[in-house]
Amino acid sequence: MGRILDGINGPKDVKKLTLSQLEQLAGEIRSEMIATVARTGGHIAPNLGVVELTLALHFTFDSPKDKFIWDVGHQCYVHKLLTGRREKFDSLRQYGGISGFPKREESPHDAFNTGHSSTSISAAVGMALAREKRGEKYEVVAIIGDGALTGGMAFEALNHAGHLGIDLIVILNDNEMSIASNVGALSSYLSRLRTDPMYFKGKEEFETLLRKVPHIGPRVVKVAERVKDSLKYLVVPGMLFEELGFTYLGPIDGHNIAAMNSVFKRAKSIRGPVLIHVITKKGKGYRPAEENPDTFHGIGPFDIRTGSPIRKNGPPSYTSVFGNTLVQLAREDERIIGITAAMPNGTGLDIFAKEFPARFYDVGIAEQHAVTLAAGMAVEGFKPVVAIYSTFLQRAYDQILHDVCLQNLPVVFAIDRAGIVGEDGETHQGLFDFSYLRSIPNMTVMAPKDENELRHMLATAITFDGPIALRYPRGSGTGVRLDQEVKPLPVGKAEVLREGQHIVILAIGRPVYDALAAAEELASLGIEAGVINCRFVKPLDEELIKAVARKVKRIVTVEEHVLAGGFGSAVLELLARERINDREVLCLGIPDEFVPQGKADILRAKYGLTAEGIKKAILSRFPVQVSYHKTARGQA
Amino acid sequence: MGRILDGINGPKDVKKLTLSQLEQLAGEIRSEMIATVARTGGHIAPNLGVVELTLALHFTFDSPKDKFIWDVGHQCYVHKLLTGRREKFDSLRQYGGISGFPKREESPHDAFNTGHSSTSISAAVGMALAREKRGEKYEVVAIIGDGALTGGMAFEALNHAGHLGIDLIVILNDNEMSIASNVGALSSYLSRLRTDPMYFKGKEEFETLLRKVPHIGPRVVKVAERVKDSLKYLVVPGMLFEELGFTYLGPIDGHNIAAMNSVFKRAKSIRGPVLIHVITKKGKGYRPAEENPDTFHGIGPFDIRTGSPIRKNGPPSYTSVFGNTLVQLAREDERIIGITAAMPNGTGLDIFAKEFPARFYDVGIAEQHAVTLAAGMAVEGFKPVVAIYSTFLQRAYDQILHDVCLQNLPVVFAIDRAGIVGEDGETHQGLFDFSYLRSIPNMTVMAPKDENELRHMLATAITFDGPIALRYPRGSGTGVRLDQEVKPLPVGKAEVLREGQHIVILAIGRPVYDALAAAEELASLGIEAGVINCRFVKPLDEELIKAVARKVKRIVTVEEHVLAGGFGSAVLELLARERINDREVLCLGIPDEFVPQGKADILRAKYGLTAEGIKKAILSRFPVQVSYHKTARGQA
Repeated sequence: MGRILDGINGPKDVKKLTLSQLEQLAGEIRSEMIATVARTGGHIAPNLGVVELTLALHFTFDSPKDKFIWDVGHQCYVHKLLTGRREKFDSLRQYGGISGFPKREESPHDAFNTGHSSTSISAAVGMALAREKRGEKYEVVAIIGDGALTGGMAFEALNHAGHLGIDLIVILNDNEMSIASNVGALSSYLSRLRTDPMYFKGKEEFETLLRKVPHIGPRVVKVAERVKDSLKYLVVPGMLFEELGFTYLGPIDGHNIAAMNSVFKRAKSIRGPVLIHVITKKGKGYRPAEENPDTFHGIGPFDIRTGSPIRKNGPPSYTSVFGNTLVQLAREDERIIGITAAMPNGTGLDIFAKEFPARFYDVGIAEQHAVTLAAGMAVEGFKPVVAIYSTFLQRAYDQILHDVCLQNLPVVFAIDRAGIVGEDGETHQGLFDFSYLRSIPNMTVMAPKDENELRHMLATAITFDGPIALRYPRGSGTGVRLDQEVKPLPVGKAEVLREGQHIVILAIGRPVYDALAAAEELASLGIEAGVINCRFVKPLDEELIKAVARKVKRIVTVEEHVLAGGFGSAVLELLARERINDREVLCLGIPDEFVPQGKADILRAKYGLTAEGIKKAILSRFPVQVSYHKTARGQA
Repeated sequence: MGRILDGINGPKDVKKLTLSQLEQLAGEIRSEMIATVARTGGHIAPNLGVVELTLALHFTFDSPKDKFIWDVGHQCYVHKLLTGRREKFDSLRQYGGISGFPKREESPHDAFNTGHSSTSISAAVGMALAREKRGEKYEVVAIIGDGALTGGMAFEALNHAGHLGIDLIVILNDNEMSIASNVGALSSYLSRLRTDPMYFKGKEEFETLLRKVPHIGPRVVKVAERVKDSLKYLVVPGMLFEELGFTYLGPIDGHNIAAMNSVFKRAKSIRGPVLIHVITKKGKGYRPAEENPDTFHGIGPFDIRTGSPIRKNGPPSYTSVFGNTLVQLAREDERIIGITAAMPNGTGLDIFAKEFPARFYDVGIAEQHAVTLAAGMAVEGFKPVVAIYSTFLQRAYDQILHDVCLQNLPVVFAIDRAGIVGEDGETHQGLFDFSYLRSIPNMTVMAPKDENELRHMLATAITFDGPIALRYPRGSGTGVRLDQEVKPLPVGKAEVLREGQHIVILAIGRPVYDALAAAEELASLGIEAGVINCRFVKPLDEELIKAVARKVKRIVTVEEHVLAGGFGSAVLELLARERINDREVLCLGIPDEFVPQGKADILRAKYGLTAEGIKKAILSRFPVQVSYHKTARGQA
């Protein structure tokens, strides 16, 4: 018997199916996704959780006329399988393949690009307003997880939608956790909604009660009437949402297609904003993922039968070196506090949390609050370490500037996933942090060349009395030996790794070793290139760079970061300020474009951020026929 | 009879007063503030609204042991008068004087610096956690307006505080409006709380009702019991806050000191987070401010007797030119939508809103939502113009990058109050926008030299198919003649204002005329300086700059913006990329420090961003004895 899935070329094919066929299709989709993601890696658990939900959406609504906006977006695989991307599904998250997130460039069924959390309701309000203005008729549906709902901008959007009273459907996909176990008062609230079955019957029975009340006495009658008037504010479940102007429906079982179809249909007929509370199980239908939804949230290739990740033995990740080093430092320094925004595992703070549960705070998907919370603790003498991915820290830019740097507070920013992150693609690359951080006064910015240097930079950060950031890449370290003892590095001091009279390469962060390897290859061509591991983007080691630049005429800067406003730009500013002219500076980094998805190695090669790429760029700018023996005139 | 105020040197002097003395003091404080702000300008209406609230806080709590965190902070004048800054109060907002915002550097009574909205609860949670860790005993009190409560990060913090269950007092200063009239579902909710007097008695009477219920019948009894159990979730006012884990007290009259003292005292005895809902009247006690709280929110010098602003006749402000031009363009283009975050007047969008109410959205203090809402409308073919001050747009950095630029959507950012803003000081200077915007791919960034160019840049932005920003200064335009017809400028093209063979000044935005004036003065010294109005920070007019830089050896860049990663930095990047070496580049702008408060003129002189300053900097770098007749070798 052929698969139903093979006949699904668009939502219209979903609409033709019977309930039992939909259920069969759900199973096929699960197998397809597990098979693909076991090979490509990806966000398997969230997608297993929304199979029936996505089927019900496509059964009841009419995409692309109706618009689905997937918050965060990593739960869009089922949607992609149902909307004409089945045959390309094996290219998921690969270079040149289909994205693991919704992308308008890919399909008209992807109404809005997402990647970061909590944006969907805002976009949905915008699209619904556009519809009203044009007098068109279609539904706008935002699908948002309970984790993403804790992000402040989701609340801003709920508040505005409730105020506008606009037709709009928000589907709260409540899987009782976001990436890590969920936190926050909102989460307890949702859990009360889920677990108290009386909430469902409450309203009806309460009305019965009230009908009998008038017999008691006139004074009470009056109260009862007011209570009755206010009934929707009193006994309806989802009060919190009702208070904000939404009609609340639910909770409903997110694995019961028939139930969802019926509630979705009802929601279409309700005027004004509606919130549908759907309960799903992350990892549903694949035992290893059900049992470890956190591990299977975003995962690399794994063995389907056992669910074990296919790990090559290799060096520890930057993340785990960070986590272990923080623990080591925290044993000696009681002021250290760990703060993360729903990423304890991803940032390595889970290691810290295990040893110091009382000194660890996961604030949920709330980067803004995380940073200002840290500022509050720093004011009172603590040493908060805020560990957030580079791309997500963007959301707290104003808090870094306004709450931390303006007060010159000793908050440490441990910025994981900085630089090229690979398969998650455009929305997740961490390529802007040097720029947005170094322009802020009082900020110090570091990037280690390897995981051992990360250890010492973390010690530096802890002992430093001001805002300080260290940014390091996703994935495995270089395998370098880890020093047992960690000690602070001198702030603003670079490290000379190699001398060379023809060229000097000023490198920062991950590409330092590539620069070294390039220098070695150049040496075999008779070109002597010095290599400096700059360590600090801010403050630069001005003395060293000035001294070197006065001796060597050709300067190359290398960074895994956009060139606009980045590290190389800081070097150019320094040289101009110091009137070190007549130098040729070649800045290597990411050009002015968004970096697509793909394996990090492929992308690094594409942008020339490899030993080979650096060598080629240098040879192209400074061909061998150039007389390398001439050095610049001194300018002291 | 002497003033009580003259004897108030700290909170302990407040505590000694009787109720009637406190009331007399309130009057004296109002007179003092009106007299000072009539001269210095400032946020008079918010401060008039919190006189009794601040007195009650200092009467009941024990600052600086107890910590007050003033959200936004512009309502701290009363607090400053009571905490030892009475004698310096006449230097309010002046260069070198006391700040119009809380500042830890000024007094131990200022527990946390603020300026931007919605940060106080996060900071308070941090400080409360610090207290718990150290086993100390003091109260942490965040005072936040109903407007600031709509900012998403306030919700993030409420959610976390409720989850932690930590002792913390949030005072909701509900003045029924923030800066402009308030918006949002939350606002309607607060208004229901305010206006329904039954809410006060509801709980008691409802309990009476329930006591009588059992006589009706056993089935109903059961329901009633459940209802009773859930009572706090049902009939207590402030349900929304209760749902988030807070104990809600109020609403109480924020001009009744005795009532507040009693509720504050009660709040101290309650375990866990408490929210006290206080109703105040903005502008209270000064008729002109009561009648026009919006005008008197933040105001320049005014005539105390009439309340009329002391306006010098002068050119129209950039803000009003923007507003009027947008109206003019919107008459021709139905796609134009105006969006602001609680600043319709401040941004000039009030002019647009008046003519096109159905095309205008004020989303409240919610910059993040504003930007992604705009993205949603742009996806559907509209042309949203998001008008937000430079400093506040920082809060939407991630949304600009992730929701607008990644999708390359035609959203227009009208960035008012860019550059030096003057008396509001460090927290409000708009000095980072070039850096944080130009590093984002797909973004176009402009700055007009005057208000007439602003008109054409707005037309450019409207016709441009991609993300585009124009940033312009606070205050009066230059008085230049305004063209009737507005038409798009060529994107990425600069304007040559003056030729000169010795030096070329590349200027952007407001300082362009200063650069011209400097060039004229230099000419009288025999130095011929060309002046280019660059118009675009991104994309630069690469052809023109390259051609000029190949001819002229000395290049000066001028911007009212930090130097790190700014416009001059972009020019340096271009020259390096184009291998135009052997040029001396002098970058003028703001150094790596936060710019203090003071009149804009004083600050511009301080940082050399005047004709005189530019001339001096050029002469200092390129003294007259340098042989100006030598021009650089061509490098084609």
